[in-house]
Amino acid sequence: MEKVYLGVDVGGMSIKVGAVNENGEILIKDTVKTDGENVDNFLSDMKKLLEKVIKEAKEKGYEVEGIGFGVPGVVNNKEGTIDKMANIKGKYIPLREYLSSLNLPIRISNDANVAALAEQKFGAAKGYNNVILLTLGTGVGGGVIVDGKLFEGYLGKGAELGHVCLIYNGLKCGCGRNGCLEAYASASALLRETKEKMEAHKDSAMWDYCDNDINKVSGLTSFECAKKGDKYAIEVVDQYVSYLGEGLLDFCNIFRPEVIVIGGGISNQGEYLSNKLQSYLEKRNYGYETAPRSEVLIAKLKNDAGIIGAASLLIK
Amino acid sequence: MEKVYLGVDVGGMSIKVGAVNENGEILIKDTVKTDGENVDNFLSDMKKLLEKVIKEAKEKGYEVEGIGFGVPGVVNNKEGTIDKMANIKGKYIPLREYLSSLNLPIRISNDANVAALAEQKFGAAKGYNNVILLTLGTGVGGGVIVDGKLFEGYLGKGAELGHVCLIYNGLKCGCGRNGCLEAYASASALLRETKEKMEAHKDSAMWDYCDNDINKVSGLTSFECAKKGDKYAIEVVDQYVSYLGEGLLDFCNIFRPEVIVIGGGISNQGEYLSNKLQSYLEKRNYGYETAPRSEVLIAKLKNDAGIIGAASLLIK
Repeated sequence: MEKVYLGVDVGGMSIKVGAVNENGEILIKDTVKTDGENVDNFLSDMKKLLEKVIKEAKEKGYEVEGIGFGVPGVVNNKEGTIDKMANIKGKYIPLREYLSSLNLPIRISNDANVAALAEQKFGAAKGYNNVILLTLGTGVGGGVIVDGKLFEGYLGKGAELGHVCLIYNGLKCGCGRNGCLEAYASASALLRETKEKMEAHKDSAMWDYCDNDINKVSGLTSFECAKKGDKYAIEVVDQYVSYLGEGLLDFCNIFRPEVIVIGGGISNQGEYLSNKLQSYLEKRNYGYETAPRSEVLIAKLKNDAGIIGAASLLIK
Repeated sequence: MEKVYLGVDVGGMSIKVGAVNENGEILIKDTVKTDGENVDNFLSDMKKLLEKVIKEAKEKGYEVEGIGFGVPGVVNNKEGTIDKMANIKGKYIPLREYLSSLNLPIRISNDANVAALAEQKFGAAKGYNNVILLTLGTGVGGGVIVDGKLFEGYLGKGAELGHVCLIYNGLKCGCGRNGCLEAYASASALLRETKEKMEAHKDSAMWDYCDNDINKVSGLTSFECAKKGDKYAIEVVDQYVSYLGEGLLDFCNIFRPEVIVIGGGISNQGEYLSNKLQSYLEKRNYGYETAPRSEVLIAKLKNDAGIIGAASLLIK
């Protein structure tokens, strides 16, 4: 009987479940839309979906070994709880307890953590034991692999790489602190920086790119116009790379990753972004003289990273 | 036969060796002054001292299990080399290879790393498995214990907690980057901040404290005058606590330590400092809502931390 591991990609609007084998292949995949406003509905939707996938897996002759969760929020990996999740009302969810009737081992981690695990086991960083991943989306998420193992910090509450101070007394961050990396290097921050530059320079080609409508500015605007040579777009991109690069130098000095994986929406810029970051780090000796090279790579697993990574919490 | 572990506290001016038992007690201790300008002398002085202590240990009936080194610089813990050490000319020292004739297991780590290990095994953080230590001296050193084990980063080159960015494009740091925590939270930085405040405020009581001679300013000046109520000294201390506190919040968000140990010269301020830091972190939820408390404590082992910690690299 082939062993499978269920991976749950938890979102406030939908829940995705996959049955993943030891090679990281998704053999079954199902999803349910849910109501993030109501915890009871959210939980019962999740449980029904899990029961459905478990039934299907058994019918196909798979042996279900356990369930892993990737949660966009703060968990407690010891107690198996969700302690805070932005899109769900009600702060505390005792997930492992709620699902105890399924009689399966349950592991819970943060969504960026499981994405890092997925990329290290089956994606861009396969074959490397010391890896960090940054997801550049609405926020900046972080995941860390040390000596081949997921590093989550005490109670699974660490590795919040987006929430290190980049600018003392800087912009207010969603977490409550000021000046966090997330406030300068998230996709949302890039939008803000793009719009500020455009407002200051009405002659920028970025205006053309978004039909003179600043509401059409996206994460692409600065990057695409920089590629075409617009001076102001290049300034936005260079500044963004510098903010992000300084954050990465922090993580080089702390972790000395062999590989840095960039995920999230901004990672669609591919090698155009990773080459710029690589060059930024290289010029600064990866933070320290005699430091080994850290290779900057783009995430490979994209939308499936959540399911595969969550399942990977249980894959040996 | 009682087992002992040799701990070597490496400095550019002197080398200290201790034979430490499994309880962290130093049974033999010896030291040699050395010439940091000459690598050959440095190495032969070290080897002679080690041979002397090994002989003495054997005469006393101890079984020597191995040698651990705490080095004020950058090491490679896999190869057993010193890759860079500020006070020694010549960048690269293949230490394990040089001492191979001693026929003992050799482990090498950074001085702040071994201090963290010492405090966690036998000092202020005894009984805790998730600990960070910051040494506040000429520089800012960092050591990290995760799940009861020393975390050194890939090749033993990580955990450089003094070299995370606190102020983007800020003051030049000794490491080559700009705006590192070390440039704002080291004892050297405190001196600079104290002098700047005094120059701006000739009516500060800090002038009296140092006999109107700015060259007599020390790490004590601001702290002692703050305790007596000098407004400007309080500003210096509050600013220093804020810089340091923001760095600690970074490490809370990354590691979620149960205990934060403060060592180095500035730690002589004891609870006056640790209480201020505790309060700073508490008011900010240790970086994140739902984060567990991190207790700020002062290092206990003082000058012996280097020897005990280096020996601890081999103690199970």
